Amino acid sequence: MSTEALARLAEERVDHRFKGLPPDADGLTVGELTAQRRNLFTGGFATPVLALSAERLEHNLRLMETYAVRHGLAFAPHGKTSMAPRLFQRQIERGAWGITLAVPHQVRVARAFGFQRVFLANELVDPAALRWISAELDSDPDFRLVCYVDSVRGVALMDAALQGATRPLDVVVELAAGEGARTGVRTEAECAAVADAVAATPALRLVGVAGYEAEVPEANPERVHAWLRRLVSLAVGFDKDGRFEGADEIVVSAGGSAWFDAVADVFADIPEFSLPVLKLLRSGAYVSHDDGRYRKITPFNRVPEEGALEPAFRLWAQVVSRPSPEQAFVNAGKRDAAYDLDLPFAQVVRRDGTERPAAGIEVTALSDQHAWLRTGPEADLEVGDWLGLGLSHPCTSFDKWPLIPVAEADGTVVEYIRTYF
Amino acid sequence: MSTEALARLAEERVDHRFKGLPPDADGLTVGELTAQRRNLFTGGFATPVLALSAERLEHNLRLMETYAVRHGLAFAPHGKTSMAPRLFQRQIERGAWGITLAVPHQVRVARAFGFQRVFLANELVDPAALRWISAELDSDPDFRLVCYVDSVRGVALMDAALQGATRPLDVVVELAAGEGARTGVRTEAECAAVADAVAATPALRLVGVAGYEAEVPEANPERVHAWLRRLVSLAVGFDKDGRFEGADEIVVSAGGSAWFDAVADVFADIPEFSLPVLKLLRSGAYVSHDDGRYRKITPFNRVPEEGALEPAFRLWAQVVSRPSPEQAFVNAGKRDAAYDLDLPFAQVVRRDGTERPAAGIEVTALSDQHAWLRTGPEADLEVGDWLGLGLSHPCTSFDKWPLIPVAEADGTVVEYIRTYF
Repeated sequence: MSTEALARLAEERVDHRFKGLPPDADGLTVGELTAQRRNLFTGGFATPVLALSAERLEHNLRLMETYAVRHGLAFAPHGKTSMAPRLFQRQIERGAWGITLAVPHQVRVARAFGFQRVFLANELVDPAALRWISAELDSDPDFRLVCYVDSVRGVALMDAALQGATRPLDVVVELAAGEGARTGVRTEAECAAVADAVAATPALRLVGVAGYEAEVPEANPERVHAWLRRLVSLAVGFDKDGRFEGADEIVVSAGGSAWFDAVADVFADIPEFSLPVLKLLRSGAYVSHDDGRYRKITPFNRVPEEGALEPAFRLWAQVVSRPSPEQAFVNAGKRDAAYDLDLPFAQVVRRDGTERPAAGIEVTALSDQHAWLRTGPEADLEVGDWLGLGLSHPCTSFDKWPLIPVAEADGTVVEYIRTYF
Repeated sequence: MSTEALARLAEERVDHRFKGLPPDADGLTVGELTAQRRNLFTGGFATPVLALSAERLEHNLRLMETYAVRHGLAFAPHGKTSMAPRLFQRQIERGAWGITLAVPHQVRVARAFGFQRVFLANELVDPAALRWISAELDSDPDFRLVCYVDSVRGVALMDAALQGATRPLDVVVELAAGEGARTGVRTEAECAAVADAVAATPALRLVGVAGYEAEVPEANPERVHAWLRRLVSLAVGFDKDGRFEGADEIVVSAGGSAWFDAVADVFADIPEFSLPVLKLLRSGAYVSHDDGRYRKITPFNRVPEEGALEPAFRLWAQVVSRPSPEQAFVNAGKRDAAYDLDLPFAQVVRRDGTERPAAGIEVTALSDQHAWLRTGPEADLEVGDWLGLGLSHPCTSFDKWPLIPVAEADGTVVEYIRTYF
């Protein structure tokens, strides 16, 4: 990564591009605003404002580093979750092998900040993007990118777009998680046909296999373990058949945020290959974790002795209307909060510097710019109060906020995280 | 508005901040890229990419200008839809009185581009935002902002934050659309109490009444007409009681994108007031219109003789996986397409420069970065094809794209629209 490019993030001006920030900070650089150590609650921030907890963020980063080390896994956290180069940096500093990404635009963001190892968890058949990636590979010998192939036609399109490239593009065959699952090759025979196509294409180099266990139909621990064993067997078979001949190491990759315990189990039993093996875990949502879906599905619920992630986001909104004892409205809506998996959860109310639980308050709907609250008799809520909301789904929370304050427990904002979506 | 600030949009650099744009345009200014008149399909654009139709955009802008003029309505299109200063400019150039906005951050964006008349369709009780708006009013005598009040407590909070302001802040009392509806005062008696509170506050000046008819419970033409008549009666009563004494004109405002025909009907019968009246319509979604919800609910379906809006968005994604005859996957997901009201609609397939209807193709789900397609026997779709998708809900389409190419029918990109969310 480029520490110079990352340092330049502090030189960006605070202005109308960034919602939630103090209006009177306009024109300061991010670095200057950071140095002021403003308080999230008294420092002039405007509502709605999404904040990350400094302590919880650090805890989560540390926990997954420890987890990967303990289980002998290389780690390429999925960067599509945050699309925040500063978080990519902290992940790399905490031992990550590289960053996983989903689409070429995300690779452009990573390259703008000099990240050197990218795992692109998708087949890439866009000629413009392939030519750009090929130019990046040719101009920087330290840049490594591995992407999926999942069809013979895809390989042909890649080959056509990559004519004239100096370095071959590293690819892994994607094994689908089952019939009716998402992308990926459905059968071992088709995987071999795709690998044959790769072998016939000097522009590509086969370096492994990968897939996404969370798409296993009716996923449960047995089915996920079984599919992961199938993925490992595919790699074993490919290796036996000499299909990784040109590679320096063999990549075997799986692991979102719901089943990394199963990945750790099954990858622990990966037999010896003809080459060193890179067991690559790709979980991304852990960085902020959440108060909804990911809280429910995290593998740490099955292995509590290995730790627990902490939800690091809180969205602060202000009550702008209290038209009846049963209803209230805050000024955050679909533009501000994730709503694809669950509605936000009312957690705390702040008034005059005092915080208390949001008893009797429930979010029942979101408009574009409002949240609808149902309030019970025990709810003490009035116009002007700040409501702290928990969110469900890190990916659709980060992507609504281009510059996110990171606050310590007492409210002191110690950093601002820039995202690129 | 500031034509200088708007012109500076062309000086912004194309880089990793803007997805979908050609990788080889990196480093060009937006103005330079525009001058190249690249083709959306052959000019190196990367998928996914959202495009606006130049002709349809122009048609929609013209149609609503005509509509407002024909019905004697002033127009403050809701800017939260696009948050695109360049579209605000075109709306103003087409006769709009000003721009409606939802939250103070959006006002900051409008002010950064020098827009002089803002209708803030929300109560505003955030002290930091109020102080900033007050400073803007004091420093620019041509800036006019009108915002909602919907509670006595809200008025008290505004009064406290606005101590020391030179110019009073113009407010309108928001009448709720009914019991259980969104924000706004529920009864006429409470409206009078809020108006009393405003009258007792030198920091505020009452200039009218407003509301949002789309929130009328179980809305139908009769109920919406009835509520609009109630809104007008409230203004009549306030005027009779001398409550607008300090105003220069009386604002009566309603009108989203579902019932502007009813607004036109009822506002045509507004009686003479003691002051000139500003009948202010606020529809915003018309600018791009859509292929889903807004296509269904547009008032032009009831008054086809007055014209028809045209859906101006098309999202282009590329097929990256075709694992079975029944399934395909494109590389656009929740990060790229609106999904809150309907899933995207498969419209056309492009291969080798030829476009044909997307027969037998249906979007069945979105992941963060993929759309799931179900394909019937008649579907001719393969890896590498571009799929053109129609969208539902302009507001949650614009907000996923910071720089949107505007293409003519032959694909020539003639402009890039910057958004700020």
